[in-house]
Amino acid sequence: MRGSHRVPFTKTHPVHPPHPDPLPGRERNRPLGEFDRIARFFKPLAAGFPGARGLRDDAAVFGVPEGRELVVTTDAMVAGVHFFPDDPPADIAAKLMRSNLSDLAAMGAEPLAYTLVTALPRGLDESWLEGFAAGLDEDQRQFGIALAGGDSVSTSGPITLSVTAFGLVPAGRALPRWGGRTGDRVFVTGCIGDAALGLEIAYGRLDIPDEDTRAHLLRRLRRPDPRMGIGPRLIGLASGAMDVSDGLVADLGHLCEESGCAALLRADRVPLSDAARGAIDGDPVRLAVAITGGDDYELLFSAPPTARDGLAALAADCGVAITEIGELRPGSPGDVAVLDAAGSPLPLSRRGWDHF
Amino acid sequence: MRGSHRVPFTKTHPVHPPHPDPLPGRERNRPLGEFDRIARFFKPLAAGFPGARGLRDDAAVFGVPEGRELVVTTDAMVAGVHFFPDDPPADIAAKLMRSNLSDLAAMGAEPLAYTLVTALPRGLDESWLEGFAAGLDEDQRQFGIALAGGDSVSTSGPITLSVTAFGLVPAGRALPRWGGRTGDRVFVTGCIGDAALGLEIAYGRLDIPDEDTRAHLLRRLRRPDPRMGIGPRLIGLASGAMDVSDGLVADLGHLCEESGCAALLRADRVPLSDAARGAIDGDPVRLAVAITGGDDYELLFSAPPTARDGLAALAADCGVAITEIGELRPGSPGDVAVLDAAGSPLPLSRRGWDHF
Repeated sequence: MRGSHRVPFTKTHPVHPPHPDPLPGRERNRPLGEFDRIARFFKPLAAGFPGARGLRDDAAVFGVPEGRELVVTTDAMVAGVHFFPDDPPADIAAKLMRSNLSDLAAMGAEPLAYTLVTALPRGLDESWLEGFAAGLDEDQRQFGIALAGGDSVSTSGPITLSVTAFGLVPAGRALPRWGGRTGDRVFVTGCIGDAALGLEIAYGRLDIPDEDTRAHLLRRLRRPDPRMGIGPRLIGLASGAMDVSDGLVADLGHLCEESGCAALLRADRVPLSDAARGAIDGDPVRLAVAITGGDDYELLFSAPPTARDGLAALAADCGVAITEIGELRPGSPGDVAVLDAAGSPLPLSRRGWDHF
Repeated sequence: MRGSHRVPFTKTHPVHPPHPDPLPGRERNRPLGEFDRIARFFKPLAAGFPGARGLRDDAAVFGVPEGRELVVTTDAMVAGVHFFPDDPPADIAAKLMRSNLSDLAAMGAEPLAYTLVTALPRGLDESWLEGFAAGLDEDQRQFGIALAGGDSVSTSGPITLSVTAFGLVPAGRALPRWGGRTGDRVFVTGCIGDAALGLEIAYGRLDIPDEDTRAHLLRRLRRPDPRMGIGPRLIGLASGAMDVSDGLVADLGHLCEESGCAALLRADRVPLSDAARGAIDGDPVRLAVAITGGDDYELLFSAPPTARDGLAALAADCGVAITEIGELRPGSPGDVAVLDAAGSPLPLSRRGWDHF
């Protein structure tokens, strides 16, 4: 009854209420070709990873080399909540993948594979899926990761996507959030605030006449740069680490909360791209947007002052800035004092994004 | 700014379009206590599993013992598609968990841990989450599995849930779907059709006056019995294996497709519970419902005739029936001939559920 191209995208479920006809003798009304779509779009993404078993089995199977541990992280995104429904699907794929990869980097892990769950509206245009799969494919090649399995269901609601990403880390060496110690310095990779300012542009609240500047900020919002080359090499240098997704100030607060200390953050030392600096020069209140807006997917970590030379060498080797922006100090766990260039407290009405 | 109970349920994302106010100086309107809810409902579920790192880090970390491989499966469920929105939340949790566990069993794996993604409507009553977490907790204890991490997001659509389950299998020994060989016999665990008949009851299309019978069929729909005790012990006995989720006939077709052979299925030998037999005696067309309806989460596997004694001993040891129901034979890959007690073809208009 089914075409020979039927490829189980691992296992799926019976469909209940919207198809109130489980009696034999009546055909259910379904768009043709869903399994062909899976074969066409997802099976190629699993081709390079033997553990995916060609998406032909009930599950994926993979080994973890001796002396290594598996790092597992999962991030979900919902249209209208985490991305704009009309964002290019390849960008949505990139953000989904990279937000997960950034978590692996924050643990010091090297990427291995991922599983994907898609809940898609029934009438979704095939070109959306084509663009989405192309975005995944591009990131698979860029970051050396492959699809291991997944599930594909339909929904009456918005596009809902999640990735579970797997990475490898030397056993016992994963970087914890809670490793920060009083006296450690606070560092951040790359630049902060591009994505938050990009979001302002997307909302039409920030007008950037220069095309390249606008494109840079929007690109950093939609296609963050997970620091895969840096994360694993922070093992032995960093004491506590995480990635910046909720906003620099909020996330530094999280690192401090888990580490049982407070922090001083020098807002004037926060690394900004030329694009972000231009936007902030035009309206200084945007500095607060930059350091609380989130979506940066840079690495935020603490390290003792003795690690400075090693970090400088690592930054030079990777071609990505690593900037010292503050210090861990005694105080109420999670408390972050943000100072401006004059050493005065910078007024902030919030630290970052909440999730609900 | 945040309460001290903030517990990152691994990492989450900034929230975009529904909260069009990323500017500092204005507080976003969010229900209080989401992080308290995570701390209250999810953190306890991770307490017994060190790899979860207390849900305090960016990701989970766990080891895979030497000589073992990791089995990874993921299943998603959407309210109104895979379950009724007013199903008891503990039942929804059980079905989500058990459908994933059943995949592990079908691979011959023993359960280790799972990650959970919830996309929940903003106004969802807290008692729903309480019941859902209680259902997870109950299954964690029953099946020896623990929460390793997850993500929790909001959605404008229906409740959307997914679990990624992890299990361990001896290296190189995971049971493949494609291991069936011509001449192998076909076996199934437990009983088939309870869930499909339970679904008929749920739809009000099947009237079962006896309370216990009705309760049994509905229970099997909502709380399937993954065969965790049997799956790992099929290694060395079974040639090809999978679990029955789409429907017995359809899934046997899948096993045959992957194994490159056809099959003969003796419908009269398909094991039925007393409850299912009673329903079918009342209307023989319901036999077709039972063998095509799906949601059984029994194990379906092929094994050479020489494995019969071993399988009988295993069944006796586990207290779960293992029944021979057919045979693999040469033919068009995936082709399943279904015969009745008289040896005549049983007319079926469909083989099982499709997914879209």
